[in-house]
Amino acid sequence: MSIDSIIEFLRAHSKFVIASHVNPDGDALGSSLGLAMALEAMGKDVVVYNKDGTVSPYEFLPGSQRVVRSLEGSQKDRALVVVDCNNAVRSNTEGMEFAAIAVVDHHLTTSQFGDVRWIEPTRAAVGLMIYDIVIGLGATITKDIATNLYAAIAIDTGIFRYSNTTEPVLHVAASLVGAGADPAMVADKLYQGWPKRRFELLRLMMAGILVRDRVAISLIDRAMFERTGTDHFDTENFVNFPMLMDDVKVSAFVRETDAGVWKVSIRSKGQVNVAEVASKFQGGGHKNAAGCTINGTEQQVVEQLIDALNGSANK
Amino acid sequence: MSIDSIIEFLRAHSKFVIASHVNPDGDALGSSLGLAMALEAMGKDVVVYNKDGTVSPYEFLPGSQRVVRSLEGSQKDRALVVVDCNNAVRSNTEGMEFAAIAVVDHHLTTSQFGDVRWIEPTRAAVGLMIYDIVIGLGATITKDIATNLYAAIAIDTGIFRYSNTTEPVLHVAASLVGAGADPAMVADKLYQGWPKRRFELLRLMMAGILVRDRVAISLIDRAMFERTGTDHFDTENFVNFPMLMDDVKVSAFVRETDAGVWKVSIRSKGQVNVAEVASKFQGGGHKNAAGCTINGTEQQVVEQLIDALNGSANK
Repeated sequence: MSIDSIIEFLRAHSKFVIASHVNPDGDALGSSLGLAMALEAMGKDVVVYNKDGTVSPYEFLPGSQRVVRSLEGSQKDRALVVVDCNNAVRSNTEGMEFAAIAVVDHHLTTSQFGDVRWIEPTRAAVGLMIYDIVIGLGATITKDIATNLYAAIAIDTGIFRYSNTTEPVLHVAASLVGAGADPAMVADKLYQGWPKRRFELLRLMMAGILVRDRVAISLIDRAMFERTGTDHFDTENFVNFPMLMDDVKVSAFVRETDAGVWKVSIRSKGQVNVAEVASKFQGGGHKNAAGCTINGTEQQVVEQLIDALNGSANK
Repeated sequence: MSIDSIIEFLRAHSKFVIASHVNPDGDALGSSLGLAMALEAMGKDVVVYNKDGTVSPYEFLPGSQRVVRSLEGSQKDRALVVVDCNNAVRSNTEGMEFAAIAVVDHHLTTSQFGDVRWIEPTRAAVGLMIYDIVIGLGATITKDIATNLYAAIAIDTGIFRYSNTTEPVLHVAASLVGAGADPAMVADKLYQGWPKRRFELLRLMMAGILVRDRVAISLIDRAMFERTGTDHFDTENFVNFPMLMDDVKVSAFVRETDAGVWKVSIRSKGQVNVAEVASKFQGGGHKNAAGCTINGTEQQVVEQLIDALNGSANK
């Protein structure tokens, strides 16, 4: 299905819930908020829903305070739009009833969820798809919409550093800057607005990086979070630091979200498909960026990861 | 004077030397090489000159191996084009004779050097000006020219993170990607192709950051270079790491290039004009990025810097 089915869907309904995945990133939140603003400019009624709400690095997104963490009562009269994921579990809408369901996503792993679906795994960010939708709807790209969509694209391209940065991505980014998005403000908020405690956490992580067979493993346990007064949302982007080293082709970053529960982010420079590695632990993602959760002691988790990654890295 | 005088100059002459500033960055080298390739495609004879040659982070630039570190014999039959600086001292052409001299630069501090001059302090990178010149000359933007100019723009905008990132900058970047520049390759080379020893140096620097009154001071002395087997070219971009902290408005990074000689890089988030601070030590630069050299012991240098920066930061 194509963008046309989504535009028709958005025109046909007048009340919406927009939902995105748990532990949302800038693409999930920016896309949700940008689309909500465009629909409201058309006179529609929109609720933006995410189970985790707006997590701290994204509070600068215009409208971020409007994200609700639960949906009360019946949603039968509202159409659901799921962005940046494509099933009921990831969007936390299991067991809820909606008037109809649309999905806008760019992930490889797809399902048959939704009445209309537009899924483009080659697009760098859902924010780019929402840009096309807003233009297709004939809505104006206001400064607030531009900021949300620019941030969405910025976070999913590492601010134009990943291989998904193409000519059209940069032209859309330019247009969004023309419409009022501020690249330096977005970059500052995404990459420079760190509380000092978060910088301390990075120093602890940097001090303990292990590099073996071109795989870098870095780790933050409960004690490090407690010592610095941080939580796992503060580790956004940490996985990219070991990628600075030219002899590192995969970086795996592990943090202990609950005692004995380790959330893993894995990044690749292109030689290793880390979505495959993550799937060994029931995780998923993209070829160069994936994640999973592993239970066990620190030593068990690191050993399992090294085994799985070296198996793939040496192929 | 305008771009037209430069285009006329480039059309009128057939033999050139292109020179840029000592300790060249990606804008100086990428602009020099991109312009050289366009002139050669027009059948002209070009020598690319820089006293320091191509320093290590920029060896990936197409044609980087052709940069000569000295000019032998008379240059009287060649026209000189100075890029990314605007006088004989910075371009290391003092005492040399040329058929004529043109200057293409974006620095604030200007001189009357050169027969024709095009100086635009508001342009983010000289690479953008060279792009306009190449288009103006009617030359094709080849993949190699695109890579050189994309890298030039990328380094001077912090890959589109600084406040000089505007709509036209991103449109030009998009066109260069369309012409064959590879954003992920350039980003990897600029920000991820670090030898492990350089990463070790960063860890040493990170361990010792001092933050006082929203000013971060970081430092690498001769002993740290020796312990890691690195030199001062390995510290490119280190000054940006303390900028991650939201309560830091100025970052000053100091490295001991020779015993008792400290090269200082200063970056600002916009509230402090660091060009003014650098000028107190006979240095210079832009409002948000400047540099200078200070002689003395480590303690003397840090104290002088803190005094100068806090004086400006608290204005």
